Amino acid sequence: LAKHGRELEQLSDEVNVDFYYEAAVAGAIPIIRSLSESMVGDWILRVMGIVNGTTNYILTKMQETGADFADALKEAQALGYAEADPTADVEGYDAAAKAAILGHLAFHTPVTDGDVFREGITGITAVDIQVAKSMDMVIKLLAIAELTSENEISVRVHPAMLAKTHPLASVRESFNAIFVEAESAGQLMFYGRGAGGTPTASAVLGDIVAIARNLMEDSVASSVSDYNKFKVVDISQIHSRYVIRFEVKDRPGVLAAIASTFAKNDVSLNTVDQNDVGEDAELIVMTHEATEAALSKTVAELSKMDIVKSVASVIRVEGYPS
Amino acid sequence: LAKHGRELEQLSDEVNVDFYYEAAVAGAIPIIRSLSESMVGDWILRVMGIVNGTTNYILTKMQETGADFADALKEAQALGYAEADPTADVEGYDAAAKAAILGHLAFHTPVTDGDVFREGITGITAVDIQVAKSMDMVIKLLAIAELTSENEISVRVHPAMLAKTHPLASVRESFNAIFVEAESAGQLMFYGRGAGGTPTASAVLGDIVAIARNLMEDSVASSVSDYNKFKVVDISQIHSRYVIRFEVKDRPGVLAAIASTFAKNDVSLNTVDQNDVGEDAELIVMTHEATEAALSKTVAELSKMDIVKSVASVIRVEGYPS
Repeated sequence: LAKHGRELEQLSDEVNVDFYYEAAVAGAIPIIRSLSESMVGDWILRVMGIVNGTTNYILTKMQETGADFADALKEAQALGYAEADPTADVEGYDAAAKAAILGHLAFHTPVTDGDVFREGITGITAVDIQVAKSMDMVIKLLAIAELTSENEISVRVHPAMLAKTHPLASVRESFNAIFVEAESAGQLMFYGRGAGGTPTASAVLGDIVAIARNLMEDSVASSVSDYNKFKVVDISQIHSRYVIRFEVKDRPGVLAAIASTFAKNDVSLNTVDQNDVGEDAELIVMTHEATEAALSKTVAELSKMDIVKSVASVIRVEGYPS
Repeated sequence: LAKHGRELEQLSDEVNVDFYYEAAVAGAIPIIRSLSESMVGDWILRVMGIVNGTTNYILTKMQETGADFADALKEAQALGYAEADPTADVEGYDAAAKAAILGHLAFHTPVTDGDVFREGITGITAVDIQVAKSMDMVIKLLAIAELTSENEISVRVHPAMLAKTHPLASVRESFNAIFVEAESAGQLMFYGRGAGGTPTASAVLGDIVAIARNLMEDSVASSVSDYNKFKVVDISQIHSRYVIRFEVKDRPGVLAAIASTFAKNDVSLNTVDQNDVGEDAELIVMTHEATEAALSKTVAELSKMDIVKSVASVIRVEGYPS
């Protein structure tokens, strides 16, 4: 569906048959029908979801027990939430496929998994989680499809910091949830079981009943339209806030030098927090909104500075109260 | 719809036209389509919702500012959330109408507003909210339709204490949300704007597009079925936990006398908390599950006891972790 969804929709039109796939994204949660039928008269601005239960389970354990990624993954594997080879989940491939399907439905634009920027959670450390906590945020792996201010769309999967007050922040363990912002409906959230035998069966049965009802009426459901041809922008073009954590030498003038590197690249800072670590210092910076291109350039320049020992992590911030 | 929904469905069948009303319950939230189409192959066990934005706004203010009901109502009226005559909202009539519609959809059984037990929030005090807080709970006005263990259904609206960890507990201000438990899908929650011009328009437009699509196919959507004829039980038959707060004389043997009154009526106690209030004491009791009939009988007997000065409040507890 994420690779050839459009062709499958077209084929179903040609041979005049129903084509339903409610269980494909977020299991028992009726997000496909809600986007393609209930909200079809609205203008979707953004879909942001926790669509992979394995990674949400791992991040919940890291959040609640302080475990590092490797230990949380082992626990998820022991419980059967993660596969022996967890790549598809932890590297975000599964979520990226779902992001493509959601982007296609939400924006009536062909989107395939190849269009989706993807970054997994293997780089998230216990320290990152701790930093998020200290800023009243949690880290979630998000699948995002959104309309940009330039009327293009961005479809991406990456870990992000999210304010604890955001409805998605309290989605724990292997549960899924999809947060939708629409011009008229405003904010909506759909929450439930994203996987498992019976939740999947519930969604499939709903589709089968719909098909049976259509057969009785001798009718065929509309296929998902793609009358919009929004350009899918490269990740470098998106605007986001970022939290950057790096180790610096503890010398006079360090903060000024670093702040001016951000300023030179047009990235303005929201908060700066400095902690001493032995003879060095750890700097935690949250930016205001900046383009990913400007942020990447800043980080590259920072990495080369003599006073910067290492850039430990760069994490995007989503759903920040404006 | 709550009074004559069944007749309207039958009439739409007779004249062979579509009959959609997504905006009737919880505004922009696609709960009607989700219950009647997406989950139609599942077996719904329980629908529990915050379906009235005005009362949720009032309870949120009471919860977050410590305001009493009268002041929170005044604020809601000043902001246009509550009408000059707030009866339909605060006495639960609006929520009861929605409970009837949800009960009909969820259980394929005719339910009208007259079948719905209804209790509003005018009796909820700042002290009740404080007691709930001290027990890690919040108070919400809930519309509930559930299958009982005797294969009957209970449809009711009343304020209830809800654990802070329950997904409905964090639904703030005038937002609506509906929590659904189904045999196969498990737990689902739908969250969004329950009222307002554009959210309602979004839901209505979704219906209009559905009707247009049906017209193009020369087909008509299935009406909501009522192949089940579950009996709607009287409130006296339901099982619930209760929190009871009462003032007693602070004398030796009071607790024993009170505990034995509960025991005699087959209501067992989960927690008892006693606070001194001048020469008297306040007792806060949470029961285990009991029938409403047994609880009412207990409360009536307690009220007549010499050592009991007054029964200040009796509040049901829902969604308690089992």
